[in-house]
Amino acid sequence: MAAPLARPAPERPQFVRNTWYIAALRSELDGPMLARTILGTSVNLYRTSDGTPVALRNRCPHRGYPLSEGTLGPDDVITCGYHGFRFGPDGTCLSVPGQQAVPAHADVQTYPVVENGPFVWIWMGDPALADPAEIPAETGFADPSFTFVPGHVVIDANHQLIADNVLDLSHESFIHATKIGTRDVAETGITSRSDESRWLVEASRIMPDAECPPTYRERTGLQSPIDREQHIHYFVPALYVLDVSVVKAASVHDPADGPRRPYLGKVVYGLTPLSARRTHYFFAIGRDYALGDAAMDEAVREGQLCLIEEDAAAVAILQELEDEEGPSPEVSTRLDTAALIARRMLARRLRAEAAAPASAR
Amino acid sequence: MAAPLARPAPERPQFVRNTWYIAALRSELDGPMLARTILGTSVNLYRTSDGTPVALRNRCPHRGYPLSEGTLGPDDVITCGYHGFRFGPDGTCLSVPGQQAVPAHADVQTYPVVENGPFVWIWMGDPALADPAEIPAETGFADPSFTFVPGHVVIDANHQLIADNVLDLSHESFIHATKIGTRDVAETGITSRSDESRWLVEASRIMPDAECPPTYRERTGLQSPIDREQHIHYFVPALYVLDVSVVKAASVHDPADGPRRPYLGKVVYGLTPLSARRTHYFFAIGRDYALGDAAMDEAVREGQLCLIEEDAAAVAILQELEDEEGPSPEVSTRLDTAALIARRMLARRLRAEAAAPASAR
Amino acid sequence: MAAPLARPAPERPQFVRNTWYIAALRSELDGPMLARTILGTSVNLYRTSDGTPVALRNRCPHRGYPLSEGTLGPDDVITCGYHGFRFGPDGTCLSVPGQQAVPAHADVQTYPVVENGPFVWIWMGDPALADPAEIPAETGFADPSFTFVPGHVVIDANHQLIADNVLDLSHESFIHATKIGTRDVAETGITSRSDESRWLVEASRIMPDAECPPTYRERTGLQSPIDREQHIHYFVPALYVLDVSVVKAASVHDPADGPRRPYLGKVVYGLTPLSARRTHYFFAIGRDYALGDAAMDEAVREGQLCLIEEDAAAVAILQELEDEEGPSPEVSTRLDTAALIARRMLARRLRAEAAAPASAR
Repeated sequence: MAAPLARPAPERPQFVRNTWYIAALRSELDGPMLARTILGTSVNLYRTSDGTPVALRNRCPHRGYPLSEGTLGPDDVITCGYHGFRFGPDGTCLSVPGQQAVPAHADVQTYPVVENGPFVWIWMGDPALADPAEIPAETGFADPSFTFVPGHVVIDANHQLIADNVLDLSHESFIHATKIGTRDVAETGITSRSDESRWLVEASRIMPDAECPPTYRERTGLQSPIDREQHIHYFVPALYVLDVSVVKAASVHDPADGPRRPYLGKVVYGLTPLSARRTHYFFAIGRDYALGDAAMDEAVREGQLCLIEEDAAAVAILQELEDEEGPSPEVSTRLDTAALIARRMLARRLRAEAAAPASAR
Repeated sequence: MAAPLARPAPERPQFVRNTWYIAALRSELDGPMLARTILGTSVNLYRTSDGTPVALRNRCPHRGYPLSEGTLGPDDVITCGYHGFRFGPDGTCLSVPGQQAVPAHADVQTYPVVENGPFVWIWMGDPALADPAEIPAETGFADPSFTFVPGHVVIDANHQLIADNVLDLSHESFIHATKIGTRDVAETGITSRSDESRWLVEASRIMPDAECPPTYRERTGLQSPIDREQHIHYFVPALYVLDVSVVKAASVHDPADGPRRPYLGKVVYGLTPLSARRTHYFFAIGRDYALGDAAMDEAVREGQLCLIEEDAAAVAILQELEDEEGPSPEVSTRLDTAALIARRMLARRLRAEAAAPASAR
Repeated sequence: MAAPLARPAPERPQFVRNTWYIAALRSELDGPMLARTILGTSVNLYRTSDGTPVALRNRCPHRGYPLSEGTLGPDDVITCGYHGFRFGPDGTCLSVPGQQAVPAHADVQTYPVVENGPFVWIWMGDPALADPAEIPAETGFADPSFTFVPGHVVIDANHQLIADNVLDLSHESFIHATKIGTRDVAETGITSRSDESRWLVEASRIMPDAECPPTYRERTGLQSPIDREQHIHYFVPALYVLDVSVVKAASVHDPADGPRRPYLGKVVYGLTPLSARRTHYFFAIGRDYALGDAAMDEAVREGQLCLIEEDAAAVAILQELEDEEGPSPEVSTRLDTAALIARRMLARRLRAEAAAPASAR
């Protein structure tokens, strides 16, 4: 076998642990137990018979075999598929074969999980700090005027490369030129804000009298020019929400036609590191029009998968180059402001977490 | 090309060298020269014209080319396929091209090999210590009342993970539940012994009035209940012999039917490390019934390959998890006694070998 | 995913940078921009609209995206495919999106390139030292009495293993026994010379009354015995020229038939490291007969690709063994003289380059 050509992945800061990460689509927990690697750790996800989602460390304390390879009984008890250790949904080891007493330290670690919107969220850090109320409401999942199309892919790149991608939307004009990108995006400046108390970076781009990109033309029937807006809420490092608005441009609007009603969209991304160089990419694409239109749902899903394919190819190329040649020196522009703020905030958050008492890790 | 996700394989103690390892099936030496990596070293195995097995280091002393890529003449001389250095079966360099004199240090290292049972065995350590009489007779290869079905696979796991597997047979009840496992195995305690002078660990499990597992039912016609016994001889680290006995249970035996004649079986495994994370797995499955029954031979071979496939999948999963996440903390039970004794014995054997004078290495 | 079995590639000296390497066939620059990794660095090769070859570092200074993934306009301007930075063929950044001013340090590195023979050559070191006149004339590319058949493959081995291969032609007698090798090559001594001022190693082998190998028989119609000569010029580390001559042996020549006219050939190899364990292998096979014979061109190309396949398989095996087991101890013979001179010269050249002032690196 050949030696790997690639250099070791460059040292990245460790992962933030005390935050809610999206772990799975809710629908993924309807089948057999689900093994999923999150922050480099294999986790076993399933529902108890009453529907409660559960997340356990996916290695039996006996010899490390994945619990997801075992069986889940109607009594919500997992039997390890290697030597038969049995565990309840709270991680307690209930019995071991060949002896009456359960040995010490035989319980398996559990992780707080919660359902919110179309997703199951997980807390990989200190369970005492896990407050479901901290999952940002900006997703719009609770807003009945929106409908969402969710999905999940794995991207072969560090989560930072993906965050860079989605925070600098000028790439739409190039990577996605045939779908949602027009020159307006790359040519229009952004305004950025940040809120350290929520680990939040915001960026907005207002594009009056803009060209209507093909995807919006198809979905809304709008023609150029349009008034187009993009508002980003990025909760470092795990959740990205982009509010988009398109509407017939005010400059060509005939007041006799009544008020302009914008088409609103929400692009929700969950960035959940699988490892230092792979990332789960969850998405939920929301809209406030064509509710209940299954054909539109399908068009949105397919369109989103195409966009992700283009982005995933780009960041995977960057990851490969970084593996082989090391990080590239960088030159930044005004459009990179939000991404740079986010990177610095991530560094502060990692430092803060590293400095916290062990109980909070 | 992508960087490997896996972490480097964890540091394992080095391999024991001064022991007999199974290198090949005897039948594998009937064809062309055989390149096989053993303890991380490529070895060239072949027979001379009189049938004597030979093992040479598989790299020409000139530029390191594998001798197995060269040609073996009717005079038992190997000619290197790169530049034509010629070697006798004792490793002596006989000639080099372009000059009369053979340079110093041009001989190639040989390893002691011996045939025993269906296998060719190799000694990778100090040749002065290689005594074929030390190959344990417990295999039963010399016992004419047994017939053996041999085979060979490569498993993607460190040999220690495989030793753990075969020393804790309670896994039969789970991994092999549809074939040879019943709850009796996992529920019955074992008794263990060890004999440091032979680097031997023994473990026995006596199961009176046990359920007859499907595989034995098919092969012997026995019905539940049976009296079932398992006796392990594990010669750390390379050879494992399991004596099995199944017979109609004494509790249901009618003395008028005469004495009970148990069906005896022998499961011989040779664990030969290929590298730190791959292991040659040789097997010879013996029985004292249905001798000369080719259909039974085939059933035994296929059944064994199915069992190995199940075990190989399990230990490969453990190896992958260990590569990615590091070794799992472990909790042990009484059924792990023999495996734990064997691990400690392996550590002592490695230390003893490391401390021996260089001549004995 | 499994951990790599291979050990890290052994530490090799770094690459010589201040030399001309073959980067591409001229014909490869007729299509879209060409991404090629040279000395571990991705380079973007293309022609401007007037046909001038250009080589740029293939990572945009903004976020490291490969420029070869962007677009090349009719104005010779590259637009990065990620965020739209624009570059001229001299590497100057012409514009960035979203702002008027071009940031500092936004230019991309260029490399001197020049066309010579069927190849584009690149200088990866100090541009001030790049003198196209230093490309050796020994290739014969300027000699109108020769016609050349060029090509390119990538070999999975360090360039040193390939240099060893081509400098010890005795391997022809074994690796290429069915094509160009006869025992004469391995049995005939060589004479070696070196010229440090040109980093040149020469080796010659004169074989009077030699057997005519199959390939030459087919191409020239010659029969054994022939007078055969091989003269190597190896410019360490990147360029290898082998002059070959075959002619009816003087010992059987009838003077009445007039003077003997040898068939002359030139074997030009460019060894361009891709990485520490992969190497670009460019070839140009020249002859002074059958000029303009397209069928002969095709026979030469196919014959050369077969020879390379044999050599590539051999050196890839050596690389794999070195990856797994480390470098082999070596024993050398008189036929290795030229290869050993070349290795020492390479070490001196690397040391000289490392000791040179930074401006010359």
